[in-house]
Amino acid sequence: MSTPTLLHLDASPRGERSHSRKLGEEFISTWRTRHADGRILSRDLGRNPPPFVTEAWVEGAFTPPDGHSPAAQEALKVSNQFVDELLSADELLITTPIYNLSVPANLKAWIDQIVRFGRTFSKTPDGFAGLVTGKRVTILVASGSDFRPASAFGGYNFLEPYLRAVLGFIGLTDVSFVYAHSLNQSDDARTQALAEASTSTRVLAAA
Amino acid sequence: MSTPTLLHLDASPRGERSHSRKLGEEFISTWRTRHADGRILSRDLGRNPPPFVTEAWVEGAFTPPDGHSPAAQEALKVSNQFVDELLSADELLITTPIYNLSVPANLKAWIDQIVRFGRTFSKTPDGFAGLVTGKRVTILVASGSDFRPASAFGGYNFLEPYLRAVLGFIGLTDVSFVYAHSLNQSDDARTQALAEASTSTRVLAAA
Repeated sequence: MSTPTLLHLDASPRGERSHSRKLGEEFISTWRTRHADGRILSRDLGRNPPPFVTEAWVEGAFTPPDGHSPAAQEALKVSNQFVDELLSADELLITTPIYNLSVPANLKAWIDQIVRFGRTFSKTPDGFAGLVTGKRVTILVASGSDFRPASAFGGYNFLEPYLRAVLGFIGLTDVSFVYAHSLNQSDDARTQALAEASTSTRVLAAA
Repeated sequence: MSTPTLLHLDASPRGERSHSRKLGEEFISTWRTRHADGRILSRDLGRNPPPFVTEAWVEGAFTPPDGHSPAAQEALKVSNQFVDELLSADELLITTPIYNLSVPANLKAWIDQIVRFGRTFSKTPDGFAGLVTGKRVTILVASGSDFRPASAFGGYNFLEPYLRAVLGFIGLTDVSFVYAHSLNQSDDARTQALAEASTSTRVLAAA
């Protein structure tokens, strides 16, 4: 029996009221039954948002480490830690609301920290190659309206196509989405959507 | 002669090295020749990033102001200021790099602050209506590769479609993009792209 590592990111700034966090707990509960001795690295991006990219960060990320100024070294510390965590994980779980049609700024801040030349992607003669391969990703999404890709408002879902593209860019191509949608709609719609999301989440966690 | 107000946002964390900021300066220089007594509100999102949305912010944004907790009132202060600035402007200028195929997290943080129910959008029987109408928007974009929509990598441009959608959601539908692209490519490609971007910027600023 292997001891896999799950990297678990929560992007909602809300606590008890967050539907995406609750789904994440269901995922973890099921995942634990399969991996009793698995390691879970949890990072609460909602309540402890990552720093933004700075000028010193840019300097550091695109020049060889040998020549880094103290400011660049300092600016990359969090980034290096996040990249180390990502590379050490066998599997990735992201829970997030949709904010204004896309990822909340704090999840984008995490992405801006982990897309790193030479660490999570490299250049090739033809373009780029992702270096974060062979990991399954599950993304649990909460939203007030129904933003599932096939729904009437699916064209306004700028979260899933974006995450598929940017995670694919670093090599993560096995990505599944679950939607806890319609949370601001009728009680019936919300109840049904949450029940379906819960089932899908448990199926994915058990797979 | 009217005295219009230009809201000017810089999203690059870089200073002197930022191509998008430089283009913004060209826009403003030309804009000034037409509006000598115009008012310019500048906000440096790159070096002074907006706060992230918090749980108290969510509480405040979706409940009537009368019942706000002190924490919710405090959390909405920056948001209210940003919304006031946006509503007071006749025209909007955004300069930004493309980070990881989309807007940098700090620009998303600004968006998360200004999309506000009852202030920048409202609900209608059929859906939603934007409340920020009648303003021209110019977006000056810098990127290492060529991400213009019609280019080979145009499908990886998640910045323009997203900004068109979310700005359209709050009523801003007159949006022009200028691309200072290919900045990490050959000297010739970069020089030509910058020259074209400069010309397009000045044409828009003079319009």
